[in-house]
Amino acid sequence: MPVYKAPVEDVMFLLNDVFPIERYNNLPGFAEATPDMVEAILGEGAKLCEEVFAPLNLTGDQEGCKRNPDGSVTTPKGFKEAYEAYAAGGWMGLAAPEEYGGQGLPSALNTIMQEFVSSANLALGMYPGLTQGAIAALLVHGSEEIKKTYLPKMVEGVWTGTMNLTEPHCGTDLGLLKTKAVPNGDGSYAISGTKIFISAGEHDMAENIVHLVLARIEGAPAGTKGISLFVVPKILVKEDGSLGERNGVSCGSLEHKMGIHGNATCVMNYDGARGWLIGQENRGLAAMFVMMNEARLAVGVQGLAQSEVAYQNAVAYAKDRLQGRSLTGAKFPDRPADPIIVHPDVRRTLMSIRAFNEAARALVIWTALNSDIAHRSSDEAQRQSADDHMGLMTPVVKGVLTDLGFEMAVKAQQMFGGHGYIEEWGMSQFVRDARITMIYEGANGIQAMDLVGRKLGKDGGRAVMAFFNEVAAFCQENAGDENLKGFIAPLEQGLNHLQQGTMWFMQNAMARPDNAGAGATDYMHLFGLVAMGYMWAKMAKAAHARKAEGNGVAERMDAKLTTGRFFMERMMPETAARLACISAGADTTMALPAEAF
Amino acid sequence: MPVYKAPVEDVMFLLNDVFPIERYNNLPGFAEATPDMVEAILGEGAKLCEEVFAPLNLTGDQEGCKRNPDGSVTTPKGFKEAYEAYAAGGWMGLAAPEEYGGQGLPSALNTIMQEFVSSANLALGMYPGLTQGAIAALLVHGSEEIKKTYLPKMVEGVWTGTMNLTEPHCGTDLGLLKTKAVPNGDGSYAISGTKIFISAGEHDMAENIVHLVLARIEGAPAGTKGISLFVVPKILVKEDGSLGERNGVSCGSLEHKMGIHGNATCVMNYDGARGWLIGQENRGLAAMFVMMNEARLAVGVQGLAQSEVAYQNAVAYAKDRLQGRSLTGAKFPDRPADPIIVHPDVRRTLMSIRAFNEAARALVIWTALNSDIAHRSSDEAQRQSADDHMGLMTPVVKGVLTDLGFEMAVKAQQMFGGHGYIEEWGMSQFVRDARITMIYEGANGIQAMDLVGRKLGKDGGRAVMAFFNEVAAFCQENAGDENLKGFIAPLEQGLNHLQQGTMWFMQNAMARPDNAGAGATDYMHLFGLVAMGYMWAKMAKAAHARKAEGNGVAERMDAKLTTGRFFMERMMPETAARLACISAGADTTMALPAEAF
Repeated sequence: MPVYKAPVEDVMFLLNDVFPIERYNNLPGFAEATPDMVEAILGEGAKLCEEVFAPLNLTGDQEGCKRNPDGSVTTPKGFKEAYEAYAAGGWMGLAAPEEYGGQGLPSALNTIMQEFVSSANLALGMYPGLTQGAIAALLVHGSEEIKKTYLPKMVEGVWTGTMNLTEPHCGTDLGLLKTKAVPNGDGSYAISGTKIFISAGEHDMAENIVHLVLARIEGAPAGTKGISLFVVPKILVKEDGSLGERNGVSCGSLEHKMGIHGNATCVMNYDGARGWLIGQENRGLAAMFVMMNEARLAVGVQGLAQSEVAYQNAVAYAKDRLQGRSLTGAKFPDRPADPIIVHPDVRRTLMSIRAFNEAARALVIWTALNSDIAHRSSDEAQRQSADDHMGLMTPVVKGVLTDLGFEMAVKAQQMFGGHGYIEEWGMSQFVRDARITMIYEGANGIQAMDLVGRKLGKDGGRAVMAFFNEVAAFCQENAGDENLKGFIAPLEQGLNHLQQGTMWFMQNAMARPDNAGAGATDYMHLFGLVAMGYMWAKMAKAAHARKAEGNGVAERMDAKLTTGRFFMERMMPETAARLACISAGADTTMALPAEAF
Repeated sequence: MPVYKAPVEDVMFLLNDVFPIERYNNLPGFAEATPDMVEAILGEGAKLCEEVFAPLNLTGDQEGCKRNPDGSVTTPKGFKEAYEAYAAGGWMGLAAPEEYGGQGLPSALNTIMQEFVSSANLALGMYPGLTQGAIAALLVHGSEEIKKTYLPKMVEGVWTGTMNLTEPHCGTDLGLLKTKAVPNGDGSYAISGTKIFISAGEHDMAENIVHLVLARIEGAPAGTKGISLFVVPKILVKEDGSLGERNGVSCGSLEHKMGIHGNATCVMNYDGARGWLIGQENRGLAAMFVMMNEARLAVGVQGLAQSEVAYQNAVAYAKDRLQGRSLTGAKFPDRPADPIIVHPDVRRTLMSIRAFNEAARALVIWTALNSDIAHRSSDEAQRQSADDHMGLMTPVVKGVLTDLGFEMAVKAQQMFGGHGYIEEWGMSQFVRDARITMIYEGANGIQAMDLVGRKLGKDGGRAVMAFFNEVAAFCQENAGDENLKGFIAPLEQGLNHLQQGTMWFMQNAMARPDNAGAGATDYMHLFGLVAMGYMWAKMAKAAHARKAEGNGVAERMDAKLTTGRFFMERMMPETAARLACISAGADTTMALPAEAF
């Protein structure tokens, strides 16, 4: 069975040494989050993930979900109990406001726990994950009454939540959506239509399911400006908060998918179901987009999570599997062959995955802390700059961490040879599960367009300039630091390529938007490399400082530094190729008539 | 249901204009292969693949193979009939010698047909594909008696073949294998042991199955020098050629795999099964390696094949799916949205796949023609240089075309958004099926080591120097050709990087072999880029010549040229990054102690 150990130690290095969490003491919820407390919390979370979630991953994949003739859905064996353990542990409301039963802790802790959960069992983790997304939407846009009705039960985990956006003919282009909402005259609406790809749309884990549904109110304008958001419970809630009759929404069928078999991906049929408006009429998309940054960050984390667990299993296999001899002579002459970790190509592969994982985790934590600042700081300028960071980095985290998370899971699978291709080792599942993260919450091409088309130019480029300035200042401040040799020069080079790419868009994409579209994905990856390179430079600095303090961490810090150097030597050089692709522009890309394809 | 149309037109361009097949008229079998005849043959093959094989692909994946309680295996519905149609059409023996019932045509035609078959239905195509591999081994190493006993039936397709190498504890490192062969005293051996991952090991398509099995004769030396090759029929063949009793070999179980569900991947139990030696005692690995080039070429073709069929389906979807509007204003204002092929990021994706497919196909055909020359030419120097080419290019074709074939299938899947992740569209299957090609017939890390560790230095670097000289000469000859602007300079640049990488190994890997191991995969990909870039330059030259002739091919040739330019602008720049990785050497890669992982 696959192994998993939550990387608590690496997280604590990031929270204590790289982005010291104590620095944020003045933010609500952070004062309680002392290093000791954080370590204790994450230790408990790790235990739940390692001992309860992870052992159900492979069996959940093999069993999948079953829709019963009455439309109910049975999840894999053990999922319900594991979910209940999660809810009972208070994890659903870790960062939710105390007034609804939450613990009000930093949402960054929740993001970290999302990594552990997603590594241990992505399909299972999606049930609470979607609930947290629905909670976030209701918190921002729900009326007091709606919040009082739904939030305590959701935070407690007794009810779960979903997002209903996609329809058969529209996913990315929500302006096309057709689901109708007709006023019932009593403040509620009758919702009718079909939604597809609804994760956790129906299941047996919770007493009720709270659907957030995009629909078009009768007579609303066409396109995206006529879409409203509704809350539609599976079972109607009575005035006293108890459950009443079944609402007119049901699961029509389950999708057969490449992966995340343990999660019920439903076709949901709305047949005059009663729903209540969330936020303003026709402003449903805006309401959805508020929680999009957090949702996309969470999906980026899922990409990292699959890479991390795939890496851990590849390492275990590479130390155990005997095959061939080291190129420099037998390392274990008493055994029939050496373990494959002696082979440089195996090492190279493991180092690549590790160098990605550690940089990605740093990028996630940095961004999650900014999310907390953006929501909790009392200083407007601080809120604004943190919000700038979030907006800019969200498509990068989502797009790059899932593209690479998948690629790294594939590399890890490769270490197993033929054993990676058969299902019993679990490596195929990590790859199949990772694949969805590149698609949902906005396919990665959309992330690239969001970055290039919306985020770059926003507020006169304020966010991107702040990022460039921060990285450039770091390089300048540390240029003379002998410890950071091998880090600063490649980072500066990467930043230079990124700035050239940005400049190229400024000069060439205004007059010809296709030039932005044709280079967007390469730009997103270039941005990701520089952001991860910056994370490595910061981690290297922190590792040296930590090492200087002593405390027996030298070996661990040396490994960190070596891994960082690997990133700089082997992964940063790609920035030049990305820049070349951007600068090639759209001419050749767009030259063929559609019929030529 | 997924679509597939065999790219006969593109193949004919390669055979008529780029590597004119008529040039090889003097080789046995080639005189019959006139352009018209080739086109007619491939047209028939295309029809079989499009109309019989392709419609069974998705259902074959969903049904999979079933092992019955008596150890027999049932393949998916329709597979047996489709296989029979293939055999009845004479495809099994297309390139096999006439004396055994074959047609003796160029094996390049068979390689081309392998692409069509693998695109249409990889799992089904593996049954005849493995049989052709077994035929090749028997042709070279079998005694006259063995050839007479087995080959006619195999060429007819009434019996199929398999390769039995892998055991639970050894795949790459065959020196560890334990299967035993004990002389029976009558010229036969009793074979005992367990083989795993045996494709087409048991099925219901043929009257008999001819297993080629690696085993160790009692008392043989340890390691790879004590391995012999045996033919072990599922049903013993009587003196008169009719079938006798069942032999002591059976399928113990089927593997549950990520893909190629329609192919029966068996654990094979040998329990004193009667087998006959093929070739010399203890020289079994050498006997296997003779057919390795062809087998690896065929797997490279499978990588291309999955990319091609995934591309065709992505194109169909991109023209059909309406979502969003062109960045330059609505292209179809009368429709609710534009088809997604208007979006530059979609175009970029489709162009990438197409640019890879067409270059890969050229590289395959070039290499397959060299295989024919190596086997059929009466001129020793010509045979040698063709054999050099085969040896050098085989790991590149296998490693690069499967790594990229998979990557391209993933890109094609991405075009479908959520629809790519559910099984009914078939895109998930292309990705899952493509994944095995990176693993079997030697995982791609092994291909890279074969290239760097064995092929580069062989015969004083004769093969690689010949390749460098050929590309350099082409660049020099065509440097002034205005038509090839945009092709020659990037190709020269790529070649320069490849030569630098080669030089780096020469200077750094002798003293420290890990430097070769740590750079091998990057070198293989750098080599692949240059080889494909060379194919594009040759195709561009041929396309211009063809265009100058007129005949209404201008649009098709323009599309070819545009696709080639895309490759040069967007895919060749990666050579610099690959060189940087090679030159980084092994220091950082090998620095961590194994316990640090």
